[in-house]
Amino acid sequence: MAETQFTAEAGRQDIIITREFDAPRDLVFRACTEPDLVAQWWGPKGTTTAVEKMDAKPGGTWRVVQRDTEGNTFAMHGVFHDVTSERIVDTVEYEGMPGHVVLETETLEDLGGGRTKMTDHLVFQSVEDRDAMLQQDMKEGMVGTLDLLAGVLENLKTQKQAAPAR
Amino acid sequence: MAETQFTAEAGRQDIIITREFDAPRDLVFRACTEPDLVAQWWGPKGTTTAVEKMDAKPGGTWRVVQRDTEGNTFAMHGVFHDVTSERIVDTVEYEGMPGHVVLETETLEDLGGGRTKMTDHLVFQSVEDRDAMLQQDMKEGMVGTLDLLAGVLENLKTQKQAAPAR
Repeated sequence: MAETQFTAEAGRQDIIITREFDAPRDLVFRACTEPDLVAQWWGPKGTTTAVEKMDAKPGGTWRVVQRDTEGNTFAMHGVFHDVTSERIVDTVEYEGMPGHVVLETETLEDLGGGRTKMTDHLVFQSVEDRDAMLQQDMKEGMVGTLDLLAGVLENLKTQKQAAPAR
Repeated sequence: MAETQFTAEAGRQDIIITREFDAPRDLVFRACTEPDLVAQWWGPKGTTTAVEKMDAKPGGTWRVVQRDTEGNTFAMHGVFHDVTSERIVDTVEYEGMPGHVVLETETLEDLGGGRTKMTDHLVFQSVEDRDAMLQQDMKEGMVGTLDLLAGVLENLKTQKQAAPAR
């Protein structure tokens, strides 16, 4: 399975996560923007995710609620600044840390041969905000989450092969 | 005239600008969110500013076009993440640098006695993006711009005193 690269240099305000997927860019874009697909992979393993809203266009808003196996819920919301087939820019506010907003830039690079490189760039309002997020096992959570995304993409590829005239 | 504080530490991804105004918070909020008022002060001295859109609510979009004395135009746009009487969070994309997005947090602190402290916190996607902005005489431009805002606030205070039953 492809390796997730997770970069958080000391003293900086950002985190960069990259991952290559064995799936074409249009499928990765769909998996990142369609509510029913996002619900299948977003969040650490073992959580269920409800996508209350995901209006993936400039000015569109989104809200997601995750529930862990003990019934605890974690909600987050934001707004889309820009959405193209190659790049999604949005804001993220964890409702457990109200007032702390993250600027997220998700780039989807077509590597050819039906492969796609995703780069998720998170910029925090302060180094402290970023480090607080890192302390919540964020790296392990992201790796598991992107493994789930890879599984969703495999399913989408199978569906596409089964129904090419979609 | 009150002094504008401009902080851009080496190697960081952000800029913090603070300024105290001799005006109550509700007037500062109006001057920062109502299109016809924003047009009166935003931009370096000598530029005219057209506020094409400014829908100051979560998910609202905005676009501003500035024209200098030589007829050059500078456009920027973004989307509001959050808008309260105390805090405005939005994104900013200078259209001359497409794809480079800034996360802006504008805090309005009521100092009492009809005075307000504004803190404008700009977070860039990279140190390079921030430094490129600094090289464009941004500091001088911001100081002049906030002097203009102070003038607009003086006018608003006069209008308010003339028509208290508004």
